[in-house]
Amino acid sequence: MRILGIDPGLQTTGFGVVDAAGSALSYVASGTIRTTHLDRGDLPARLKVLFDGITEVVARYQPDAASVEIVFVNVNPQATLLLGQARGACVTALVCSALPVAEYTALQMKQAVAGHGKAAKAQVQAMVQRLLQLPGLPGTDAADALGLAITHAHVGQSMHRLAQATELQRKSSGMYKAGRSR
Amino acid sequence: MRILGIDPGLQTTGFGVVDAAGSALSYVASGTIRTTHLDRGDLPARLKVLFDGITEVVARYQPDAASVEIVFVNVNPQATLLLGQARGACVTALVCSALPVAEYTALQMKQAVAGHGKAAKAQVQAMVQRLLQLPGLPGTDAADALGLAITHAHVGQSMHRLAQATELQRKSSGMYKAGRSR
Repeated sequence: MRILGIDPGLQTTGFGVVDAAGSALSYVASGTIRTTHLDRGDLPARLKVLFDGITEVVARYQPDAASVEIVFVNVNPQATLLLGQARGACVTALVCSALPVAEYTALQMKQAVAGHGKAAKAQVQAMVQRLLQLPGLPGTDAADALGLAITHAHVGQSMHRLAQATELQRKSSGMYKAGRSR
Repeated sequence: MRILGIDPGLQTTGFGVVDAAGSALSYVASGTIRTTHLDRGDLPARLKVLFDGITEVVARYQPDAASVEIVFVNVNPQATLLLGQARGACVTALVCSALPVAEYTALQMKQAVAGHGKAAKAQVQAMVQRLLQLPGLPGTDAADALGLAITHAHVGQSMHRLAQATELQRKSSGMYKAGRSR
C-alpha cells in the first residue's frame, strides 16, 4: 500500500509518500508545496496552488490512501481561520482525487514515529530518517508529512494484526468448544 | 455580467446567482448545498459535497464572477476551524472553475443591500426580495448569498462610474487646458 501524508499549511504544505508492505516501510518521495511567491492577500490564488499541488502529487505518485494532520486551534484566531481554509483546500484535493482520507493529530503521529506524543521536531526528523533509511535528515514539513504516512501504515498493520488475532481466537475457541462438545 | 454569491458554511452553504446589466439586477437562481445527511465526523466527505455542489452550480449557471463572504472568528475556536475548512473547499471549487473571486464581509454586504451594516437577517431578506423583485421572501442562506452577488454588482457599477468620471475629468481638464493654452 502506498500512503501519501499531508501536513497542511497556508504558506507551506508538506507531503511525503511511503510504501508499506507488511511491517516494511520504504521512502518514495517528499517535498513541500509553497504559496510564498503569491500576494499574501490573495487567498483564493493561494488555495488554488495548494489544491493544484496536491492534485499533481497524487497524479504523479498514485497513492492508495492519504493521511492528513488534524490541525489545531492557534492562539491567534485569524491564523486558525487561515489554516482551516488551507486544510480545506488540501483535503478537498484528496477527496476529489478519490483517495480515502485518514486523519491523525500531531500527538498521534509523534507517538507512532518517536514513541511519545511530546517529541520535538528534531526527534521526529531523526526517527523518520531512521525508519525510512534516508541518507539525510528530511526537512521539518516533509518529516511531519512522512510521519503521518508512517502513522497510517502502523495503524493499518495494527488493524491487520487485530483482525488476524480475532480470527485465531475465533478458530481456537471454536476448536476448544469442538473438543469439549459431546 | 452574471455573478455567483456564496455564503459558506459546513452544514449549509448558500448560493445565489444574479445578472447585472448596468444598474439593473435580475434574479437567476438561488439555493443551498447541504451536508447534513452525512456523518458529522466525516469531514473529508462533507468538504467533497461542498466542492462538488459549487462546481455543479458553476457548470449549470456559468457565472462570470464569484462573490464570497469573508467569514469571521467564532466564539468557539473549533467551530472557526470547521468553518474555515468549509470556506476553503468553497473557494477552491470557484478558483478551480477559473472564476475570479471577490470577497466581502457580512458588514459590507449589509451596507450594500440594506444601507447599514447592522441590518438584521430579516431586513436583508426583505431588501433582497425587493431589489430582485422576488415573488416571495428568500431563505436566510440564499438571501445572504444573493446579497453578496448584489454587493459585487454594486461595487462593479461604482468602479465603472469612477472610471467614467475619471475619464470625463480627464477629457474636461484636457479641454480646459486646450482652451487656455496659447
